[in-house]
Amino acid sequence: MTKYTLTYFDVEALGEPIRMLLSYGNLDFTDNRIDYEKDWAKFKTAMPMGQVPILEADGKVMYQSLAISRYLARLVGLYGENPLEDYEIDNAVDNINDFRAKLAGAQYEQNAVAKEEKFKLLKAETIPYFLEKLDAIAAENDGHFALKKFTLADVYFTGMSNYLSLMAQQDITANYQNLKKVVENTIATPGIKEWVEKRPKKV
Amino acid sequence: MTKYTLTYFDVEALGEPIRMLLSYGNLDFTDNRIDYEKDWAKFKTAMPMGQVPILEADGKVMYQSLAISRYLARLVGLYGENPLEDYEIDNAVDNINDFRAKLAGAQYEQNAVAKEEKFKLLKAETIPYFLEKLDAIAAENDGHFALKKFTLADVYFTGMSNYLSLMAQQDITANYQNLKKVVENTIATPGIKEWVEKRPKKV
Repeated sequence: MTKYTLTYFDVEALGEPIRMLLSYGNLDFTDNRIDYEKDWAKFKTAMPMGQVPILEADGKVMYQSLAISRYLARLVGLYGENPLEDYEIDNAVDNINDFRAKLAGAQYEQNAVAKEEKFKLLKAETIPYFLEKLDAIAAENDGHFALKKFTLADVYFTGMSNYLSLMAQQDITANYQNLKKVVENTIATPGIKEWVEKRPKKV
Repeated sequence: MTKYTLTYFDVEALGEPIRMLLSYGNLDFTDNRIDYEKDWAKFKTAMPMGQVPILEADGKVMYQSLAISRYLARLVGLYGENPLEDYEIDNAVDNINDFRAKLAGAQYEQNAVAKEEKFKLLKAETIPYFLEKLDAIAAENDGHFALKKFTLADVYFTGMSNYLSLMAQQDITANYQNLKKVVENTIATPGIKEWVEKRPKKV
């Protein structure tokens, strides 16, 4: 059986959907966490694109968190069964990823004035816009993001939900019952449930 | 036979990989171009996530440019044949998309000071970093981005290459022979060749 090693920071963020997919598929993995302050500088130059997470499997180094997540989703049966089903999942993943990118654009802004402007716009417009749209999609899909069933899109959102809330400076599911349902459905899923119970309590 | 309508601005940018995929597959499509200045405000609110491109097919409205591109790539045989091949393509697409996002982050920055800072960093570090990495990947894959053959990743890069050069304020393939080869291979491909010859000359 393939042994996987996930290398990422000691946080959920982009690594957590991968950890959840590995756990869901009952795949054997080492959760290798690197210390950002102490070890990142020396790790960074050795990474294929200067980034983590990476996933090692049978000597192969995989990188790009979403490409890894898609790969694992295919392995464990959380992608579609035909091109149109795949599209529905990809579409939902892209919507979630757009929201992540908007938040990250403010969170990692280096210019203090621009950062304040960006957070103001996020709070006034972007965050409610995305949360309403995503909540409506989850409502249409009975507490899922696509195909009215549990897919990669649900894992992608749930794995990143604490990170998204951290960046948004608010609990993103608090006022959105259907988004809350996605998270609840996902963390109650066998494999993921056990992982969430035992994982380090670090966002 | 399904008739497609692509709705996008009168530019290449995010619409062009989709136009190329439709052309490669010899799919029947209407290239519907909207005038940003005149028509976008009224279109925007009608779009599923306030964005274009959208692709209409048999009454279904598809959105999210990458999800649409992946769907079409599956239809026309430019995705992988197993999860590992799909991963290689997804990984390349994500690398290209990261580069696009870095450029866009500067291009669409609203704060003039932050914008100048971002372009300075892009030119000094980010652009050469990405172009060298991408060029090395294209070298390893014999003028392609994945699997040493023509895939979605080549179309995604080539379709956006003029847009990426515009944002980077330089011809991104000028000093990178392997990236140039990707573009040359792609625009010489039957279906895409005819499209490139007849398309409007607008970046």
